[in-house]
Amino acid sequence: MYLRAFSMLKNANQDTISSSELAERLHLNPPQIRKDLSYFGAFGTRGVGYPVASTAKQIRGILKLDVTQKAALVGAGRLGAAIAAYPGFEMFGFDIAAIFDNDESKIGTIIGKNTIEDIAKISIIEDRDIHLAILAVPGEAAQSVVDMLVNCRIKGILNLSPCYLEVPKRIKVITIDLAMELGILPYYM
Amino acid sequence: MYLRAFSMLKNANQDTISSSELAERLHLNPPQIRKDLSYFGAFGTRGVGYPVASTAKQIRGILKLDVTQKAALVGAGRLGAAIAAYPGFEMFGFDIAAIFDNDESKIGTIIGKNTIEDIAKISIIEDRDIHLAILAVPGEAAQSVVDMLVNCRIKGILNLSPCYLEVPKRIKVITIDLAMELGILPYYM
Repeated sequence: MYLRAFSMLKNANQDTISSSELAERLHLNPPQIRKDLSYFGAFGTRGVGYPVASTAKQIRGILKLDVTQKAALVGAGRLGAAIAAYPGFEMFGFDIAAIFDNDESKIGTIIGKNTIEDIAKISIIEDRDIHLAILAVPGEAAQSVVDMLVNCRIKGILNLSPCYLEVPKRIKVITIDLAMELGILPYYM
Repeated sequence: MYLRAFSMLKNANQDTISSSELAERLHLNPPQIRKDLSYFGAFGTRGVGYPVASTAKQIRGILKLDVTQKAALVGAGRLGAAIAAYPGFEMFGFDIAAIFDNDESKIGTIIGKNTIEDIAKISIIEDRDIHLAILAVPGEAAQSVVDMLVNCRIKGILNLSPCYLEVPKRIKVITIDLAMELGILPYYM
């Protein structure tokens, strides 16, 4: 969240930011921000604030996002196509380096810089040094695709299918369920 | 997260679940689960577990999801179309009751049960008793659309544009940045 905020400030050509300005943006309080950023080894200057570019760089390093991370997108349906066009990945150093689908009418067609490849050939991600996958397949297909990914020595999966996935403990899965996020709102209304 | 788990168990026709089985699914520990569920007023039976249907109903009530919540989708591009087709909303009691766009070639066309309406007429959501919006517009358009929504007495916004939104304090905003979520994974690799 901090990296996102600092990256956006950098894109807006802002050089420094105070903890109180950052607090307002992130809906946190200034002491919390100073405490968090000090854990990252970032220290602000009184009356000036935190240097935007170097703090972003520091957090990027901690998160291992200072090198380009290649990711494979599995599923080139509506959601997959939207993800392939998502403008935010670059900010975090991600490169959608391959796209797979099982639909013959889609295989061979081009999305952005990628040609959609046959999911039957997904094991090539290992040769291409891709260790992250973004899963945008229908719920009923998700587990079988995940089983394929597990065999390709994948290390992390961003799961956008609203379903529960079984994976070995060595693999980190983050599931985003849009409906669950929306479900938080009525409580505050 | 608990509601999501219990709803999925209900869909799978499972009647009860133990805290240890739930712990495995949710990557939490059983005491934490027992503690959380007791806050919700849900108590399991030793050797049997928690009743799936009634616990789901209880959590639904706490979250104010026991009545259908109408939501307006703003933006009918690739991401918007994917959201309109997202199967998970029903589980949480949501009804995508209106879709808006500013693209004349899209206005009047149909997605699911909705006809895409002109964003210039967005103030009708107030008459239709819609107080939630899902924002799937390009980043550069997001703030101006949000300003419109604020004038329509919206109460909550699920923001899928990778940008910072300024809203009055009375409005709850949840931002999902897919790249930020993906950004968590390399740290664990």
